[in-house]
Amino acid sequence: MAGDKTNDPSPKVWHKTQLRVPLFEIDLGQAVYHGNYYHLFELGREDFLRNLGYPYRRFMDQQLHLTIVEASCSYRRPVRYDDLIEIHTGVNWRRTRSLALSHLIYRDEGEGGLILCTKATLNMVCVRFSGQPVSLPIEFVDLLKGWDSG
Amino acid sequence: MAGDKTNDPSPKVWHKTQLRVPLFEIDLGQAVYHGNYYHLFELGREDFLRNLGYPYRRFMDQQLHLTIVEASCSYRRPVRYDDLIEIHTGVNWRRTRSLALSHLIYRDEGEGGLILCTKATLNMVCVRFSGQPVSLPIEFVDLLKGWDSG
Amino acid sequence: MAGDKTNDPSPKVWHKTQLRVPLFEIDLGQAVYHGNYYHLFELGREDFLRNLGYPYRRFMDQQLHLTIVEASCSYRRPVRYDDLIEIHTGVNWRRTRSLALSHLIYRDEGEGGLILCTKATLNMVCVRFSGQPVSLPIEFVDLLKGWDSG
Amino acid sequence: MAGDKTNDPSPKVWHKTQLRVPLFEIDLGQAVYHGNYYHLFELGREDFLRNLGYPYRRFMDQQLHLTIVEASCSYRRPVRYDDLIEIHTGVNWRRTRSLALSHLIYRDEGEGGLILCTKATLNMVCVRFSGQPVSLPIEFVDLLKGWDSG
Repeated sequence: MAGDKTNDPSPKVWHKTQLRVPLFEIDLGQAVYHGNYYHLFELGREDFLRNLGYPYRRFMDQQLHLTIVEASCSYRRPVRYDDLIEIHTGVNWRRTRSLALSHLIYRDEGEGGLILCTKATLNMVCVRFSGQPVSLPIEFVDLLKGWDSG
Repeated sequence: MAGDKTNDPSPKVWHKTQLRVPLFEIDLGQAVYHGNYYHLFELGREDFLRNLGYPYRRFMDQQLHLTIVEASCSYRRPVRYDDLIEIHTGVNWRRTRSLALSHLIYRDEGEGGLILCTKATLNMVCVRFSGQPVSLPIEFVDLLKGWDSG
Repeated sequence: MAGDKTNDPSPKVWHKTQLRVPLFEIDLGQAVYHGNYYHLFELGREDFLRNLGYPYRRFMDQQLHLTIVEASCSYRRPVRYDDLIEIHTGVNWRRTRSLALSHLIYRDEGEGGLILCTKATLNMVCVRFSGQPVSLPIEFVDLLKGWDSG
Repeated sequence: MAGDKTNDPSPKVWHKTQLRVPLFEIDLGQAVYHGNYYHLFELGREDFLRNLGYPYRRFMDQQLHLTIVEASCSYRRPVRYDDLIEIHTGVNWRRTRSLALSHLIYRDEGEGGLILCTKATLNMVCVRFSGQPVSLPIEFVDLLKGWDSG
């Protein structure tokens, strides 16, 4: 199962995305619905890829997807409507055709105070639109290497 | 992280829920969006609790929630629009104030053929609406005991 | 209400779909999020088409969609978690390449009591996957004629 | 179109919100799911209220909601993944306890080119959390008057 690789390296570098939590993500328990945290991770991942210089649309322009094959999430504290949050996105590991990203969601308490609310890891595989796994694009890998060592 | 309890007992008894996958769960990759599988797990869980004789509404009538604290999901094969699926729901373990359910999603291939597509475990804690953890309701635990041994 | 084109014929025959409202449709106001009612209309529409003998998948098998071009909705009473509802689906009008369906959502109060909660009209056009409008499939139109006059 | 009450005044002033369309809003037809446009309208509305100086959280802090009672939407052109869009939000009319906002979604074609894709009107009523209608907060009305005449 996802997350049981006890020796997963933790990312050393994190990309940070700040946003306010929309009302439509909140459920009747007054916090983000547990499945909707994947929207927040996606927003962090999209922002990370764009900032890296390889927006997700470039995968799609080549008829490629990064399809999620494993995900695990630890919900420590609730994230509520209108909370100002920081989504931290980092690279856990990378192989020829796959990649694991970690996401941390912090609530911004003001004056630099950040409280960790959510912690997740998503493993993804590069596939053609047909579903066939393929190597990650070379230029993307080169940008990741620069990021990792940056 | 979720799912790294290697000695988690696997459920011996499974509750089964059959449904067709709605279009609104599908994303541009032509399969269920990875975060939307939690809708399918929820439908299985609700059906399980109702069948057990303790529908989720009874938790809410007592100002209680089963709040998800850990989740892990393995996406093995895509689940697509209009697929006829079976959601299997079982109890992994139970403690005084917490519970782990497993969900398996099978695609029904007709003539009794079932293909495993998705496998997930959700850990949840019983909390008051205020967020304070409390013991699982006694009557609910008794019903679970009957289910486990059933 | 919005969409009350006074000379729109009201459907004479209604298809009825009964279901319980899932938790994931509910927002922090304790009722279905206004945009999520479209999930309920979709469930009613899918059920109507399947019952008619022309499930939506048959459109897709021909590389066709019924794409929504206009929608209006009147939210009269809230629909809440676990409410038992009836979604009534009817045909407002039909042209060569387009169709309008109406949906009424009733809350089932038990003992035959139904309270009208939501009223909507959705206009849709038959298009190829490319987006080009085309005539509604002949067999579908024939089934609709049978339904209308049924 | 639905909701084209011909004597509805059209907003004279528009608040503009720019964003990129997330993947999780897209359905199998490669455009935003028709019910998910309400997420985009919500993001525009939230941004408008914050900019006005009366963020929605202030309603909630007073145990108030602006609950949607009528909505109509005209889907003219599809909005796709990663499209850069502008959501225009304006005030149609205001009464003691209710308000109508219009939203226009434009696709930004670069070099100042904007293509109108979606047009919607949402009527809302100010209610207590209990559901009882009440007057719009005086300070909010004063800010709206300044906006209208600005």
